[in-house]
Amino acid sequence: MKIGILGYGNLGRGIESAVRQNDDIELTAVFTRRDPSSVKTATGIPVYSTVDAMKLKDNIDVLILCGGSATDLPVQTPEYAKYFNVIDSFDTHAKIPEHFAAVDAAAKAGGKVGIISVGWDPGMFSLNRLYANAILPDGKDYTFWGKGVSQGHSDAVRRIEGVKDAKQYTIPVPEALDAVRGGTDPELTTRQKHTRECFVVAEDGADKERIEREIKTMPNYFSDYDTTVHFITEEELKANHSGIPHGGFVIRSGKTGLDGEHRHIIEYSLKLDSNPEFTSSVLIAYARAAYRLSKEGQTGCKTVFDIPPAYLCKEDGAYLRAHML
Amino acid sequence: MKIGILGYGNLGRGIESAVRQNDDIELTAVFTRRDPSSVKTATGIPVYSTVDAMKLKDNIDVLILCGGSATDLPVQTPEYAKYFNVIDSFDTHAKIPEHFAAVDAAAKAGGKVGIISVGWDPGMFSLNRLYANAILPDGKDYTFWGKGVSQGHSDAVRRIEGVKDAKQYTIPVPEALDAVRGGTDPELTTRQKHTRECFVVAEDGADKERIEREIKTMPNYFSDYDTTVHFITEEELKANHSGIPHGGFVIRSGKTGLDGEHRHIIEYSLKLDSNPEFTSSVLIAYARAAYRLSKEGQTGCKTVFDIPPAYLCKEDGAYLRAHML
Repeated sequence: MKIGILGYGNLGRGIESAVRQNDDIELTAVFTRRDPSSVKTATGIPVYSTVDAMKLKDNIDVLILCGGSATDLPVQTPEYAKYFNVIDSFDTHAKIPEHFAAVDAAAKAGGKVGIISVGWDPGMFSLNRLYANAILPDGKDYTFWGKGVSQGHSDAVRRIEGVKDAKQYTIPVPEALDAVRGGTDPELTTRQKHTRECFVVAEDGADKERIEREIKTMPNYFSDYDTTVHFITEEELKANHSGIPHGGFVIRSGKTGLDGEHRHIIEYSLKLDSNPEFTSSVLIAYARAAYRLSKEGQTGCKTVFDIPPAYLCKEDGAYLRAHML
Repeated sequence: MKIGILGYGNLGRGIESAVRQNDDIELTAVFTRRDPSSVKTATGIPVYSTVDAMKLKDNIDVLILCGGSATDLPVQTPEYAKYFNVIDSFDTHAKIPEHFAAVDAAAKAGGKVGIISVGWDPGMFSLNRLYANAILPDGKDYTFWGKGVSQGHSDAVRRIEGVKDAKQYTIPVPEALDAVRGGTDPELTTRQKHTRECFVVAEDGADKERIEREIKTMPNYFSDYDTTVHFITEEELKANHSGIPHGGFVIRSGKTGLDGEHRHIIEYSLKLDSNPEFTSSVLIAYARAAYRLSKEGQTGCKTVFDIPPAYLCKEDGAYLRAHML
C-alpha cells in the first residue's frame, strides 16, 4: 500500500517516521506548496509540488492531508477527495458536520473514500466516548486534557506585545479527576477541571507585570482558568520546553441495575511524548482502513465511528481472533 | 427491536435490567431449561421452556445466550444461530477460533448473524488491545485484572474439604501498574502482576492451617501468586463480600520517532460494581449491532473487531458526528 503526504510540517514528519514501523505501507511522495527543492525530507522521500500531485495519482493509494484545520483542510480534503482516497485530522469539532458533507459529496463523485477527523481528539477520545455511551446509557461524560502543550494557547501568548516566545501547558486538576473516578458525578466548572501554566520569554525591557496581567485576563483563552506565568530565558525555554507532549482522560461514570444501584467507571487515557507523532500513528492505521474500504468498492466520507476495528490492522481476522480477542 | 434471553442467572438478570435503560429495545421472552413455572423474572417478563423457543422465533430479533462458556455456549450458540440472530459472551480465550468456526457455519446456513465473545474480556479489553496495537506497532501490552471477584478461583477454594463458602479477589500490584505507566516496559512475572486474597468460611472444627496450605499451594490457581487467606464468619461473608465487583487495566506502552525517541502510554481501565451487569450492558449494545447487520442482509459470525462502533448506538451517524466526534 502506497501513501502520499500533503504538507510537510510536524504531522507530515510524524507520518514519515510512523510509516517505517509498518512494513505493509510505503511512503512514495511528499507534496508541498513551497518550492520542492527547498524541502528536504528526513528519510529521503522525494518531494513534489502540489501542482504535480495529479501526475502521481496512480502511484498513491491513500493521500494523507497534513494541513491545518483552520484554513487548509476545509479546502484541501474535499478537493483531493475527488481524485484520491484521503484522510485528515480535521479537529474543529463544531465544523465537523459541514466538513463531512463536503468530503462526502466529493469522494462520492470521485468514487473515492475519505476519512476525516482522525487522531486522538477527535479520534480515539471520540471512539471511547461513543463506546462508553453505548454501554452505559445512564451516565455522565468527562474529558480532561493534558498535561500537554496547547499550540493555540501558546500562539495566543506569543501575540502579546513584549513576548518573544512562549509555551502553554494545559493541566488537569488532580482533585477533579479523583472526584470523577470516585463516582460522585460532580458538576465541574471550567476552572475546577484544568489549570494553565505559561513559560514566557519576554523581550528585553518589556513590562512583565503587564504581560502577566494580559495573559491572565485574556477572554476565552485564560480568563476562566487559574493561570500561572513563569518568565524564563530563551535558553531555558529551548532546553526544557521544546517538546510537544500531550494527552488526557475520557471518563464515563454510569449506573446499572433495576434501581441504578451499581456504579461503573470506564476510563481511557493517553500520555504522549509527542502529540504530532501519536496523531500520525493513528492516521497511518486509518489510512490502511481507507485503502481496504476503497478496494471493497466503498465510497464517500467516513469517520472513526464507521470503521470496523479490524480494518486498522495488517493481520487478518483469524489472527486477530486467536491473538487479541 | 425485540430480544430474548436464554438462561436466567446473573447475566440474564443483568440483561433484564439493562434493557430498561434502552428505550429502543424490548425484552419479550426469557427461556429456561428449568420448569418455566419455577422461574419468576424481576420485571414480570414471561418465561418459556427452551423447547418452545422455536415457536417464538418470529417475535425475537436477537437472542442473547446467557449460559456458561464451559459447556453451555459451545453447544447453544451454534445451535440457536441456525434460527435466530444470536449473541454470547463466550470467554474461553483459547477456544475462540473453534467457537467462531462453529457459529459462523451455523449462522451462514441459517442466514443469521452471530456475535461471539462480547463483554469486557473478551470484549472491551480486546478492542483496546487491538486499537492500541494498530496505533503503536512498536510497543508492549499489559493486562491487569481486578480488584475483583474471580468466580473460578472462588469455586476452587469452595471445593477444598472443610470450606463452607469462600470469595476470592484478584488484585493488581500497584507497583507493577506504576512501572508500566512509567514507560520502562518491565518484564513482569505472574507473581509480580497480581496478588490473591481469599475470604473463607470454614466448617465447624475444620483444620484451618491445612485449608490455608491447600489454597496457597494449589497449582494453576494459587501457587504462582502471593495469596492472603482470611477466615471469617458466614455473616461477615454475606455482609461484606456478597457483591460481584471486577475491573482491570489494559495498557500499551510504545515508541515512535525515527529513533524511537518518543514514548506513549495508552491506558483503558474499568472499575465495575457488578461484573454481570456491566457485561450485560455490553451485550445489549452489540445486540443492537447484530440486529442492524442482519437487517442489512449480512450473515455469519462476527466479533467486536468486525463491528463499526456506530452500530452500537441508537442515534444516527449525523447525530453521533455532531455530538460525540
